[in-house]
Amino acid sequence: MTERRHDRAFVRTFFTSPTAVEGEADSAKMLRRASQLRGMQAPDVWVPDNEDATAPSMRDEGAENIIEVVAEAGADFPGEIHPRMVWHRDSPATRYQGFQHMLQIADPERGAIEHIDGFVIPEVGDIDDWKKADEFFTIVETEYGLEEGSLAMSVIIESGQAELAMGKLREEMGKPTNNLERLFLLVDGEVDYTKDMRAFTPTGELPSWPELRHNTSRGASAAGCIAVDGPYDDIRNVEGYHERMTENQAKGMLGIWSLTPGQVVEANTSPLPPKTGSWLLDVDGEQVELESVDGVELYDGDRLSLTQTDDGYELRVGGDTRLLDEDELREELHDLTSYVPSMDDIVDSMEEFEAAKEAGRGAIAMEQAATLRIGGTELSIAKDRMWDEATYQAAMTPISLFQDVYENRPDQHDELNERYGANVVERAIEVGL
Amino acid sequence: MTERRHDRAFVRTFFTSPTAVEGEADSAKMLRRASQLRGMQAPDVWVPDNEDATAPSMRDEGAENIIEVVAEAGADFPGEIHPRMVWHRDSPATRYQGFQHMLQIADPERGAIEHIDGFVIPEVGDIDDWKKADEFFTIVETEYGLEEGSLAMSVIIESGQAELAMGKLREEMGKPTNNLERLFLLVDGEVDYTKDMRAFTPTGELPSWPELRHNTSRGASAAGCIAVDGPYDDIRNVEGYHERMTENQAKGMLGIWSLTPGQVVEANTSPLPPKTGSWLLDVDGEQVELESVDGVELYDGDRLSLTQTDDGYELRVGGDTRLLDEDELREELHDLTSYVPSMDDIVDSMEEFEAAKEAGRGAIAMEQAATLRIGGTELSIAKDRMWDEATYQAAMTPISLFQDVYENRPDQHDELNERYGANVVERAIEVGL
Amino acid sequence: MTERRHDRAFVRTFFTSPTAVEGEADSAKMLRRASQLRGMQAPDVWVPDNEDATAPSMRDEGAENIIEVVAEAGADFPGEIHPRMVWHRDSPATRYQGFQHMLQIADPERGAIEHIDGFVIPEVGDIDDWKKADEFFTIVETEYGLEEGSLAMSVIIESGQAELAMGKLREEMGKPTNNLERLFLLVDGEVDYTKDMRAFTPTGELPSWPELRHNTSRGASAAGCIAVDGPYDDIRNVEGYHERMTENQAKGMLGIWSLTPGQVVEANTSPLPPKTGSWLLDVDGEQVELESVDGVELYDGDRLSLTQTDDGYELRVGGDTRLLDEDELREELHDLTSYVPSMDDIVDSMEEFEAAKEAGRGAIAMEQAATLRIGGTELSIAKDRMWDEATYQAAMTPISLFQDVYENRPDQHDELNERYGANVVERAIEVGL
Repeated sequence: MTERRHDRAFVRTFFTSPTAVEGEADSAKMLRRASQLRGMQAPDVWVPDNEDATAPSMRDEGAENIIEVVAEAGADFPGEIHPRMVWHRDSPATRYQGFQHMLQIADPERGAIEHIDGFVIPEVGDIDDWKKADEFFTIVETEYGLEEGSLAMSVIIESGQAELAMGKLREEMGKPTNNLERLFLLVDGEVDYTKDMRAFTPTGELPSWPELRHNTSRGASAAGCIAVDGPYDDIRNVEGYHERMTENQAKGMLGIWSLTPGQVVEANTSPLPPKTGSWLLDVDGEQVELESVDGVELYDGDRLSLTQTDDGYELRVGGDTRLLDEDELREELHDLTSYVPSMDDIVDSMEEFEAAKEAGRGAIAMEQAATLRIGGTELSIAKDRMWDEATYQAAMTPISLFQDVYENRPDQHDELNERYGANVVERAIEVGL
Repeated sequence: MTERRHDRAFVRTFFTSPTAVEGEADSAKMLRRASQLRGMQAPDVWVPDNEDATAPSMRDEGAENIIEVVAEAGADFPGEIHPRMVWHRDSPATRYQGFQHMLQIADPERGAIEHIDGFVIPEVGDIDDWKKADEFFTIVETEYGLEEGSLAMSVIIESGQAELAMGKLREEMGKPTNNLERLFLLVDGEVDYTKDMRAFTPTGELPSWPELRHNTSRGASAAGCIAVDGPYDDIRNVEGYHERMTENQAKGMLGIWSLTPGQVVEANTSPLPPKTGSWLLDVDGEQVELESVDGVELYDGDRLSLTQTDDGYELRVGGDTRLLDEDELREELHDLTSYVPSMDDIVDSMEEFEAAKEAGRGAIAMEQAATLRIGGTELSIAKDRMWDEATYQAAMTPISLFQDVYENRPDQHDELNERYGANVVERAIEVGL
Repeated sequence: MTERRHDRAFVRTFFTSPTAVEGEADSAKMLRRASQLRGMQAPDVWVPDNEDATAPSMRDEGAENIIEVVAEAGADFPGEIHPRMVWHRDSPATRYQGFQHMLQIADPERGAIEHIDGFVIPEVGDIDDWKKADEFFTIVETEYGLEEGSLAMSVIIESGQAELAMGKLREEMGKPTNNLERLFLLVDGEVDYTKDMRAFTPTGELPSWPELRHNTSRGASAAGCIAVDGPYDDIRNVEGYHERMTENQAKGMLGIWSLTPGQVVEANTSPLPPKTGSWLLDVDGEQVELESVDGVELYDGDRLSLTQTDDGYELRVGGDTRLLDEDELREELHDLTSYVPSMDDIVDSMEEFEAAKEAGRGAIAMEQAATLRIGGTELSIAKDRMWDEATYQAAMTPISLFQDVYENRPDQHDELNERYGANVVERAIEVGL
């Protein structure tokens, strides 16, 4: 069975901080500030970044800063801590520098390693390059009497060869001459990947690389690792960040890089089911969320209109108008609408299905009803969905994620209780176990 | 050469039936009913489903029902019969149960195996897991004196590791210690795949997994197997089912799961060329089929309008209006239209190309002319397409599929003759051979 | 390090010519004409095509024509010359014919081989089939005293198995029993690939195969090769050809097949940065290029309108109208616009970043300002973009391509100087070195 070998089965957020900033009185200022994050602002995985976020000339000082800040604040940090070292598939000198920094940081006398869960290795190449890094982890562990394989290794996928290497993990992990079972996160690094693939776009915007993200998610699934998307650098664009995360979730990539505490909040929240359910209306190919007012779901845009006539209804979408009787209209609206269930809805449905299964029934229909108002015209519709074992199992993914968060992030309990209400939270952490 | 080792080179339909339904006087009722399907309602591959469609507690009874119904009705069933067994990459107990059911069903004394073409193995893992299943097939065959490799093995791809395994088939098939040449169908199972990949969407709808479908089609192409898409569970949505199949055909995935006889009819028909050709008009990015009335192709929607003015034409698409002279308009309409050839058209073109090749010409132009009427304005256009050997070869795929159907499914001859007319059918089964 | 082992690091154009045309006084007419192409009309790689472009009965004559024309005109041809031989993974006879033609063409006594850079092998299968071709290259080289590995081998990817083989190049190249380091171009051949995958579309149009193109680009990146897309046979459709190339560039596939000198010009030009920058406006999902008039960027379509009202602005997109104050409007337009930088802009930004780096700064903001006029309403906006080392490196790709072109194609210097001006060219060939 594809085993998960780490404390966290899900990681929503991967937050990097520069380890040493030049020209500041305290070069560790950014690290110190990040180490104090709590609750929704604190990431699942915090990455003191001694690679790209830190100037090359500051990286030795950065390694020292990691030791100092983690020794001091690591015990109380609510997420895991995985510093990023320097590494490059094409540079032995860079690899040796990364090894030296790991040896330095992992020295138990310095007091940091007991709070460190693993290291992040960027710019890996093919699988034999991953093994070189793994070997340095093993040496560090044996040098300091740590258990072999106890330090997690996460990698940044930022080359075509690393993308291909993910297809080989399953056959390489568990071989007697490596400890690749230590692999934890597979993180896409689209900026350097774009460079490695020699791709470009007219405006300089990054390509969206859907195939890479699929392959990373698949590699994680096959090897018991966790897939994480790279940085989204249009920091002010919260909507765009959420769209990217929704896309990723449909690929099984549930984690994402965060560059600011604000992005951490968004990314910690995005994979959690919403507090309240909502109805979507397909308006000429675009999903529009309806506004819920006094139990009625309102659409008040201009692109779709509905008017009652003497002998039925007139439905206009874009430039096309159709005359429908009530049954036809109901069927049409049935097809055009969909429902986004709340946490409460999901837990309800799961409990209902569990009870039905207990009673010997393998499939039950769940109904979702609503009154829609489009323009001034109202109509009630109801949508059935069959739930069977497979539906139930698939619905379990966001719930399992929630349970993983709840177990590992007590610092977020208050915010979760506030979001969902204590009753829903209580049922959600029990359902499906 | 990548050999096809099975009777069917194409499979359009994969239809599952529960093997044992609780609470019915006759628990084999669904099986019995399915075994009587004929013509377009009968699938190319019928799958008595002793896995997900049947409750776990009913599966021993299900195995018995398969034996009984197939022994009785199998000889007359027009498609192939491939029962689905239980299996799981993570559960030795499930694998052993699947093996026992196979041993039981394949016993020649019971009279079913002579009508059974193979078994379907769900939830396979990496390639070594596929070999475990293959080994059980081999044991079953030798136990009962069947030829080694004579039972086809089809698998359901519903995990990242199985998706990766498809990349290795070509190097694993033909090794002396396995009989993987028995592989027949590679079937995507998107519900459990979504669970394995830990993916989700806001509404609970399945992700569309384009990369998985590509990889399955490619795996089939490389290993001489046949790619089949998973179930489309929005059963009332016939249009959606057809859109999915059209998408799949562009990926080389010509088969699809069917959950009802109604879906079987749609899926048996979808990859066959249409009876009559039709013109498509690109209206603001959407392909609209024109209505053919007395030899004129009509567009009567609101989004695109065309009016003749004193000095030319005014073409309005969405909100944008352009003034064009007749030549410009003709060129514009040339770009906006495309033609969907009928079976008759395809056979015509192929015969014409064959004659030209015989006469020593390597490429010829095929013309397609039409009179369009948009609003009240009419204009005639003609489209040329160059046919060379490659065009001819590519056009052969739907014809080869038709020929495979015609040869293997005499029970569909009446419906095919009715659809196309006997003359077209006769030419279609001869062309290109 | 993934080494590039050939003179060209980038190939924009792959232009095929029939080697022998029947019924012409001079069967080598097309070859002769192509050999005279110069400047933007001359491809980076010229492919005398003794396979699909030439009738089977003419291929022996074709091989002779290649020798004659290349011996005569090869010394002066400005691009590389890579004739395409016959080959098929499923036909030993075809492979042997290809080998014989190579032996014939490569004979130094005939005077052609000194101008030939390599051969193109179509219809390859799995990696062992590639090795068969490689072995023939090695034999040809040793037979004639050429250096082992000196003839480049390019392949056409037109089967699922060849697509899979690209995932193995990295582990196969460099093995002692082959010379696969000779691999140069990985060229997609979508027509035959479609046939091999048994795919089709209703209109007979080719599927767009995004996953294949990704995998080819990735294979090239991992193995130090160059990815080239297949023929675009809608020759009159220049806009479509450019859209395809823009899509390919976002995948890292910077080369494309050209079927006519006109397509060569388009494809040689497409990956080069534009002479002048331009602003794009997102109009209801479509990117519209604004017209620049006297320093103002104009939008004069109908789908988006902007009018000033007493208390702000009214912005209408499609059917939806919104009232915004000036700040909201500026933010909205900020999000809807993007800037396509010119060669001059890119060089400027790179030089500016280099100076900043020299001065010890790791990241700087680059500003792009514009005055927009939509309808009669004007508004000024400014967009900042942070440049750090990674942005700089990524911006380098089109510049490196330009430098590679400039170094290897002196025959294009005049056209490049005319396009950009000598000053910009001079700076572009120096920046980043």
